[in-house]
Amino acid sequence: MRSATRYTYLGPEGTFTEAALRTLPEAATRELVPMVSVPAALDAVRSGEAAAALVPIENSVEGGVTATLDELSTGEPLMIYREVLLEIAFALLVRPGTRLTDIKTVTGHPVAQPQVRKWLAANLPDAVWESSASNADGARLVREGRYDAAFAGEFAAATYGLEPLVTGIHDAENAETRFVLVGRPARPAARTGADRTSLVMWQRDDHPGALLEYLQEFAVRGVNLMRIESRPTGEGMGRYCFSVDCEGHITDRRVAEALMGLKRTCAEVRFLGSYPRASAGTSAAGASAAGAGRGERSDERPGTTDGDFVAAADWLARCQDGRA
Amino acid sequence: MRSATRYTYLGPEGTFTEAALRTLPEAATRELVPMVSVPAALDAVRSGEAAAALVPIENSVEGGVTATLDELSTGEPLMIYREVLLEIAFALLVRPGTRLTDIKTVTGHPVAQPQVRKWLAANLPDAVWESSASNADGARLVREGRYDAAFAGEFAAATYGLEPLVTGIHDAENAETRFVLVGRPARPAARTGADRTSLVMWQRDDHPGALLEYLQEFAVRGVNLMRIESRPTGEGMGRYCFSVDCEGHITDRRVAEALMGLKRTCAEVRFLGSYPRASAGTSAAGASAAGAGRGERSDERPGTTDGDFVAAADWLARCQDGRA
Amino acid sequence: MRSATRYTYLGPEGTFTEAALRTLPEAATRELVPMVSVPAALDAVRSGEAAAALVPIENSVEGGVTATLDELSTGEPLMIYREVLLEIAFALLVRPGTRLTDIKTVTGHPVAQPQVRKWLAANLPDAVWESSASNADGARLVREGRYDAAFAGEFAAATYGLEPLVTGIHDAENAETRFVLVGRPARPAARTGADRTSLVMWQRDDHPGALLEYLQEFAVRGVNLMRIESRPTGEGMGRYCFSVDCEGHITDRRVAEALMGLKRTCAEVRFLGSYPRASAGTSAAGASAAGAGRGERSDERPGTTDGDFVAAADWLARCQDGRA
Amino acid sequence: MRSATRYTYLGPEGTFTEAALRTLPEAATRELVPMVSVPAALDAVRSGEAAAALVPIENSVEGGVTATLDELSTGEPLMIYREVLLEIAFALLVRPGTRLTDIKTVTGHPVAQPQVRKWLAANLPDAVWESSASNADGARLVREGRYDAAFAGEFAAATYGLEPLVTGIHDAENAETRFVLVGRPARPAARTGADRTSLVMWQRDDHPGALLEYLQEFAVRGVNLMRIESRPTGEGMGRYCFSVDCEGHITDRRVAEALMGLKRTCAEVRFLGSYPRASAGTSAAGASAAGAGRGERSDERPGTTDGDFVAAADWLARCQDGRA
Repeated sequence: MRSATRYTYLGPEGTFTEAALRTLPEAATRELVPMVSVPAALDAVRSGEAAAALVPIENSVEGGVTATLDELSTGEPLMIYREVLLEIAFALLVRPGTRLTDIKTVTGHPVAQPQVRKWLAANLPDAVWESSASNADGARLVREGRYDAAFAGEFAAATYGLEPLVTGIHDAENAETRFVLVGRPARPAARTGADRTSLVMWQRDDHPGALLEYLQEFAVRGVNLMRIESRPTGEGMGRYCFSVDCEGHITDRRVAEALMGLKRTCAEVRFLGSYPRASAGTSAAGASAAGAGRGERSDERPGTTDGDFVAAADWLARCQDGRA
Repeated sequence: MRSATRYTYLGPEGTFTEAALRTLPEAATRELVPMVSVPAALDAVRSGEAAAALVPIENSVEGGVTATLDELSTGEPLMIYREVLLEIAFALLVRPGTRLTDIKTVTGHPVAQPQVRKWLAANLPDAVWESSASNADGARLVREGRYDAAFAGEFAAATYGLEPLVTGIHDAENAETRFVLVGRPARPAARTGADRTSLVMWQRDDHPGALLEYLQEFAVRGVNLMRIESRPTGEGMGRYCFSVDCEGHITDRRVAEALMGLKRTCAEVRFLGSYPRASAGTSAAGASAAGAGRGERSDERPGTTDGDFVAAADWLARCQDGRA
Repeated sequence: MRSATRYTYLGPEGTFTEAALRTLPEAATRELVPMVSVPAALDAVRSGEAAAALVPIENSVEGGVTATLDELSTGEPLMIYREVLLEIAFALLVRPGTRLTDIKTVTGHPVAQPQVRKWLAANLPDAVWESSASNADGARLVREGRYDAAFAGEFAAATYGLEPLVTGIHDAENAETRFVLVGRPARPAARTGADRTSLVMWQRDDHPGALLEYLQEFAVRGVNLMRIESRPTGEGMGRYCFSVDCEGHITDRRVAEALMGLKRTCAEVRFLGSYPRASAGTSAAGASAAGAGRGERSDERPGTTDGDFVAAADWLARCQDGRA
Repeated sequence: MRSATRYTYLGPEGTFTEAALRTLPEAATRELVPMVSVPAALDAVRSGEAAAALVPIENSVEGGVTATLDELSTGEPLMIYREVLLEIAFALLVRPGTRLTDIKTVTGHPVAQPQVRKWLAANLPDAVWESSASNADGARLVREGRYDAAFAGEFAAATYGLEPLVTGIHDAENAETRFVLVGRPARPAARTGADRTSLVMWQRDDHPGALLEYLQEFAVRGVNLMRIESRPTGEGMGRYCFSVDCEGHITDRRVAEALMGLKRTCAEVRFLGSYPRASAGTSAAGASAAGAGRGERSDERPGTTDGDFVAAADWLARCQDGRA
């Protein structure tokens, strides 16, 4: 069943993903449906059952979310419409009345563990960790009495009838997760001047210098890379594709020319969208869906503005016409 | 307690890691100790309780094992002594007597899921998947009756009193996992002519073209990259270090000069070892610890052999002495 | 006085330049006017007194003809319409009756000297060389009795009433001079598939890596350089501009994009024309004005044909429209 | 006859070359011998008849002196010991009593012509120019009455019994000529911290991207190019070698490594010397043999000091020894 008003997200309820989704203004008027996995959330978009899905793509401590990266690079094409940055801080959720000294077992999503490891070693050195399928699922298991405490977002406490014994737990400063709202391919959002463009590149053949060549396609047009991750293509050890974010919008001339250069040079390029860069805000939710903050180009190479491209094209036309 | 004869590995017993470890000739004379996590296996090496640890570092379908990558790049330095490649094929383990049509629930490590997803869809479309902490742990849960079947290595069946109902399951051709034997820093193994060198590089500052510069340090000396992965430094979104494998040995002149170039260019470089390249063998174990197979340099740039470097150094000395 | 039928050339009569000019089919229907210098020949074009001028631009032994390079890069813009390659072999011209043993003094253009030096050392070791303003002028001075012999083209003998005592003299194998027919800026000749494009580039500022950046603008689009010469800008020691020929035509997409990239990156770019590449023929004249011979691209980088560029532009448009 | 006290120079007496030579302190104690050509001056060094020769190598208006460039790149190896910069300003030399309005014919070396062309057009628009073999030779011809005036250095007036009618003539501001003192190969002069290194590079094969690769050998080590000129190899049109000056001394680590890289990458490299950079001084002579002025590196790439190289080599040794 098609639904233009349904958004899926990586569930269950009470996850950081849901918290991120609720920072979007339109979330208030959408039906928000938790899904058991990233592939399930995205398949609902592919099939038309949902208009879009919010899934995590990158964590500043744990790195890329491979399920999301791989889903976006294979199968029926999807596109990133926008991004949400959320500061990640955990609460230690317990059944009401539990004291810190009562806690023998703790749980949480495997991704949460390295983000709370130091806190655990300092505060609950003897507690045994067991992973759960999600932070929210861990909360459920605490409520059911299987574990004494769960790391989850503070917002999950109410949902599961728990209370936050400790809040603001995060080993790393600046822990953030970046989420993307993914839909079917569409005309990209309008250029804001502080945009991000995502793509996946496959090597034409497995020649050793390919990555260097791809980076030069960006560099020679003055397009800055923001993120690059290699992912296996599944064709055997040592065969990679590259998931990349660069500064700028597909309608920026320098970005457009770099993309065309990559299209010519790579075996395949999949355009995953141009969208406003988000910055972690200072709102109550700790999230911001569209970014004033990280706006400007980080390093301007001379001769790469739209005006420079237009002037060069005019000059070329004059040369070709004998009017230079 | 120090032990020169103890090797730890990512447990529990019955995992592919154990199978990989047992392909090493010296495994027969070592005490093999399963550990609950990669950090635990490596911390035993750091503390001196074990001489080395075998941990997975890369899977041809799932990509890098981030726990291993991150452990190697932070904390007290460790070094890779050698690598083992293991072809990954799953068996569907069941309690004796179980038929395919009896299976309603299946389990396995989350990493196994994408490698058997297509097989499941084709053969057990209605079975419900739940992840377990490891493939071996899944087998244990099947024996305990919690699930009907578990994906694991065929070798795990005997350990857990199960039987392999189906074997050789793998969605992707050429599914392999690369494991590394990690110890305390030591003089690297002798050059074999078919070696791999691993390192981690941190950016001096976050300037956009840094990665391009690092790749040029390799390229200009004709050193081929085999693997590159970006990992977050934990200092905030968009801050990465790069985990890299290149062809060749630290005593190869071209590799040595590239490493020194990176040392000068990067904020920090951590050398993780030079060791023989492994190739997946055709032995019963499906593994090979030292590689004849993938030996030769994949793309020889003229002027980059050791002989070329020696001749150039001789020439330079003659120039400096006025004898050129 | 404007004249569409007048061609100037670097005189005087009897020079290799005149010989090269006469290989052009249209030379038969033009008024051919020798001029005393390259600037004079080109100024006649600038002023409209001549439709075009033939001047030497490069010799395979002596290198670039700096007067021509500098005239093309400064002043009122001109454009190269076509090129002519001429094999250079000298004849030793003497007054009738002179024997080799009679020759005490020889003359010729300074550029001729290094091309006959070995021959002189072997055959006339005691003869004294003095330079003349041109090879033809040397012939005139021999006729007037000032010198005993002159090096010049064999074709000059009749003009000056001399006889060729020895012919086919050239120290270097493959000695050729490339001449260019220069006119006022106009729409370039149609693409032939074996073309040459000439330009001059000035650095935006004198930063050390500028030349590397310019070469990358060519390389990243797979455009091969055929010639590069640095010339002083006249602004002081160490300030250069670069005179460059590349393979291809300004209407080849890869060339067009490279030119635009240079236009954006350089302080200034002067387009000097796209024209068919000539090859030295085997005709009686030893010249060929349009080149079948050196036609094909010398090293094809994948993804750089016009078709590749068009396909990439189509793909970009689809991405921008949400139809990728 | 060998002579350690004889210096040759490009004559005749009264040329700018002699003036440059006389700025060298040791010139006062040497026998200074004018030679008729650059090859003759250098051959005297090769044969041992002279200890060194001073020849022009580059003019800021006219560019490279090809006779010098080609002599240095072929034949028995020579080496540049030092350089001298001389500001070039011409005097118009006439027989005593001659007034400007009397001048119908002027002469001078062909290289002088473009440097005085504008002055001539403005001040003697009707005078006829004829080239002479050297500026000094032109002065001689004026004395003999063949021409009315000669452009030469003011210092040449006395030698030829002429008087300078006008002085300080130069079309271009900052007109300078760089001269080099050339001897047989020897240990280079000690590093001063403001040095120049000269070399010639031949391509291994004629592949289009060779120059780009050579420039990268410099760039990756942070060595700045000061001058690059392509010269034909004499093997046919389109075959070049590259004459290059870079900042720094052969004992600077970054320069040494770049030279070795080029030695490995090029078909051949000829080292032409490391010597102090000169700057045009304000002395009466207008010359300065050793340069304080243009001293510092023009653009410091991080990680390329000698200290950085030493630290990297130490680190490499520790890695190779297992002590990193």
